[in-house]
Amino acid sequence: MSFEAIIEGTAAAVEGQPEAAKVVFTVQGRLVGPTEFDTTVRQHTVKVDEPPTLGGEDLAPNPVEYALAAFASCQAITYRFWAAKLGIALDRVEVAAEGDLDVRGIFGLDEDVRAGFTEVRLAVTPSGPESPERYRELADAVDAHCPVFDLFANATPVVRRVAVSA
Amino acid sequence: MSFEAIIEGTAAAVEGQPEAAKVVFTVQGRLVGPTEFDTTVRQHTVKVDEPPTLGGEDLAPNPVEYALAAFASCQAITYRFWAAKLGIALDRVEVAAEGDLDVRGIFGLDEDVRAGFTEVRLAVTPSGPESPERYRELADAVDAHCPVFDLFANATPVVRRVAVSA
Repeated sequence: MSFEAIIEGTAAAVEGQPEAAKVVFTVQGRLVGPTEFDTTVRQHTVKVDEPPTLGGEDLAPNPVEYALAAFASCQAITYRFWAAKLGIALDRVEVAAEGDLDVRGIFGLDEDVRAGFTEVRLAVTPSGPESPERYRELADAVDAHCPVFDLFANATPVVRRVAVSA
Repeated sequence: MSFEAIIEGTAAAVEGQPEAAKVVFTVQGRLVGPTEFDTTVRQHTVKVDEPPTLGGEDLAPNPVEYALAAFASCQAITYRFWAAKLGIALDRVEVAAEGDLDVRGIFGLDEDVRAGFTEVRLAVTPSGPESPERYRELADAVDAHCPVFDLFANATPVVRRVAVSA
């Protein structure tokens, strides 16, 4: 099915019934080593670990690296969707993402330092037969509609529940 | 090396030289199929894809699922660090994360609907020999210092650069 057909099909499915547009994504996981964490995502497994400097064995990327991978991939896939929606030919998309972290935050060494990224930089290279202006138009549409761009750039309500047995 | 030693070593290394606490994390990737994206993270590769309903082949989790995996794993690992820092014995940590998404956002079907998660829920189950009160104290310390909790709950500056050849 083409991306155009997917977008039109989604629009038709949710027209007049906004509840049909709501999707819940779920993951579960547990520590299986000092910092090794196995995550179940539907039929997939995602392993996470830290390098030895943070107490792990570097068996996989760490959590903030996965967050950047989520961001880079979400950008690229949203380029596909919006290229189809706007009728812009797109041959390739490359994305690099980097984030600045100050480790004083995570360890509580300075409570004025935030725990998360202080800045994230994204370099996107779309290519194909269209004019640079068309790709810039595409980039603006993507940034306004990319779920992980929104997650990074804006605050999201987080509800946390801790289950402890007495 | 114990987590206590890692935290003490980090504190000693950055004491009086805050520049030493700054770390840059980097990933690069590209589309290798309709929605298949291969991400290079140091020596690791992270594959991302969408299910057929979104034009992919479901070869791997999708970007928002990776974002939730980053969140769940970051929580668990931060439990390890802060259990060591606070002297709280911790045997196991399980984490489930779920996020609500309204697909009208990504496809621009309703510009009042945000593209990203409208809410994320986290269920954490720490276990071990300590009292429930101690694990609740640990949970509060974790949420205040977990990098991906901060990323989700707060806005992060994002700088985006698009390279298009004329």
